[in-house]
Amino acid sequence: MQARHTGKRSRTAPLTKRKTSKTMTREELVRQIFQKKSFLCVGLDVDLNKVPKHLLEDEDPIFTFNKQIIDATAPYCVAYKPNLAFYEAYGIKGLTAFEKTVKYIQENYPEQFIIADAKRGDIGNTSKMYAQTFFGEYKVDALTVAPYMGEDSVVPFLTYESDKKPWVILLALTSNKGSFDFQQTVDTEGQRLFEKVITKSQEWGTPENLMYVVGATRGEMFKDIRKVAPEHFLLVPGVGAQGGSLQDVCRYGMTKDCALLVNSSRGIIFADSTKDFANVAAEKAKELQQQMKEELEKI
Amino acid sequence: MQARHTGKRSRTAPLTKRKTSKTMTREELVRQIFQKKSFLCVGLDVDLNKVPKHLLEDEDPIFTFNKQIIDATAPYCVAYKPNLAFYEAYGIKGLTAFEKTVKYIQENYPEQFIIADAKRGDIGNTSKMYAQTFFGEYKVDALTVAPYMGEDSVVPFLTYESDKKPWVILLALTSNKGSFDFQQTVDTEGQRLFEKVITKSQEWGTPENLMYVVGATRGEMFKDIRKVAPEHFLLVPGVGAQGGSLQDVCRYGMTKDCALLVNSSRGIIFADSTKDFANVAAEKAKELQQQMKEELEKI
Repeated sequence: MQARHTGKRSRTAPLTKRKTSKTMTREELVRQIFQKKSFLCVGLDVDLNKVPKHLLEDEDPIFTFNKQIIDATAPYCVAYKPNLAFYEAYGIKGLTAFEKTVKYIQENYPEQFIIADAKRGDIGNTSKMYAQTFFGEYKVDALTVAPYMGEDSVVPFLTYESDKKPWVILLALTSNKGSFDFQQTVDTEGQRLFEKVITKSQEWGTPENLMYVVGATRGEMFKDIRKVAPEHFLLVPGVGAQGGSLQDVCRYGMTKDCALLVNSSRGIIFADSTKDFANVAAEKAKELQQQMKEELEKI
Repeated sequence: MQARHTGKRSRTAPLTKRKTSKTMTREELVRQIFQKKSFLCVGLDVDLNKVPKHLLEDEDPIFTFNKQIIDATAPYCVAYKPNLAFYEAYGIKGLTAFEKTVKYIQENYPEQFIIADAKRGDIGNTSKMYAQTFFGEYKVDALTVAPYMGEDSVVPFLTYESDKKPWVILLALTSNKGSFDFQQTVDTEGQRLFEKVITKSQEWGTPENLMYVVGATRGEMFKDIRKVAPEHFLLVPGVGAQGGSLQDVCRYGMTKDCALLVNSSRGIIFADSTKDFANVAAEKAKELQQQMKEELEKI
């Protein structure tokens, strides 16, 4: 436990291959971050209207695109986050590409944390089926979950095969405009809904299996988030295309364990649409990694 | 418009086949309800651990099960609601069964309203992809959507190809225990979160393309719901297996247009696990339809 909190031992231990039958632990994730000097998550949100034209002749353009993006960016990131919407939209072919992508990462980059961004959540017996899909079949490390339906919609994900220890990443404060509609509603006890989601859900999971989605678009909000979630990892979309500042996120949100995964999708994977796209993606990922390295050195 | 409000003209018009290139309108749905004297929605939540054993030898047991359930129950219901979790859990095979089920209903029972129960919702460009999947590819009439991410996560579903007029069924007050965690949180203006979801979302959609999920487990809550949504259709889970009372739901929730779709899944489709399962499902559906007929006659 000491290693996780001080980071000393784990940060200097050699990079080891993990067993894919288990999800990545918090300790392993923290170790990856300090070894790679990166807390970058690359969002694999593949839109066939945006991939380089020459790939469209390929038999499986989504997977071919992903494979090249992954090979190019893996040195600079610690996590990949395919959003299911972009795969489901292409039906059976899309889901096959999703499955192949996850397997490709697991087999070739087992040190990468894999997040299925699917924002699921339903009544107990139904969430259990979704848990089976994502943790039993696809074997990802983490799944994003929507909190609206409460405890029995979230817990089946956390308790799915306890030796596997899957992660839930619960929506708290998202980066979109609509986050003002309900998430910031103040209740009679002075708590905003996203704060209530964070405090209440700590009765269901721990910093070892529960993270929160917190958008980067309002950096100073991370101060408030850290008051109610001082230790939990935060998955942070909204840097780049959506205008959030990496420096603000780190200033207010970083802990001594880092405890941040900052996601960039479009800003990396669609930075270029020529045959050189993978090299440009690598450059963009490296740029972010360099900024992250600076931030990590301040800890 | 008069027909929709008084129901007179529409309720006596003949049962016509609709074009599946468009989703069903409110007027058509109301007409179906009064002609069939039913507002039953059958939930197609197929769990292979619960289907009759002899079907497991079949090449596509999920579709075979659904086909027999649909043929047996179609006279007694106006809608079918497959929950995506139960199909995704079986991977590509499960999704193929989902697709075949939707097509089977569209081709053989075009008067049935088809709801994909998927509880999706994401940032704008991502919700648009989900809309493409469910309205563009599968061509269902309605999709259940989670409200947590607000306006720009919901509107892309409502505006997907405006001539198609797809329906959104927004989670408001669900039937599970976890609905107490956040949905009933009272804000500083005295409004509970589910009421805020209902009032706010009326800026985005109308009773012609927006419904709400309201669980049957607390019948008297329908009084409060009707104060904020006097006209909207409500999709009501929780009658039967979860203990809700049909009579209470109707007493407090029914309007002169009915404006209720009451769902039953396990209570119908898994009522029997022998070779006679479809007949027993038909009996159970008919029992509910007979009670619904009585309630409709009170209007």
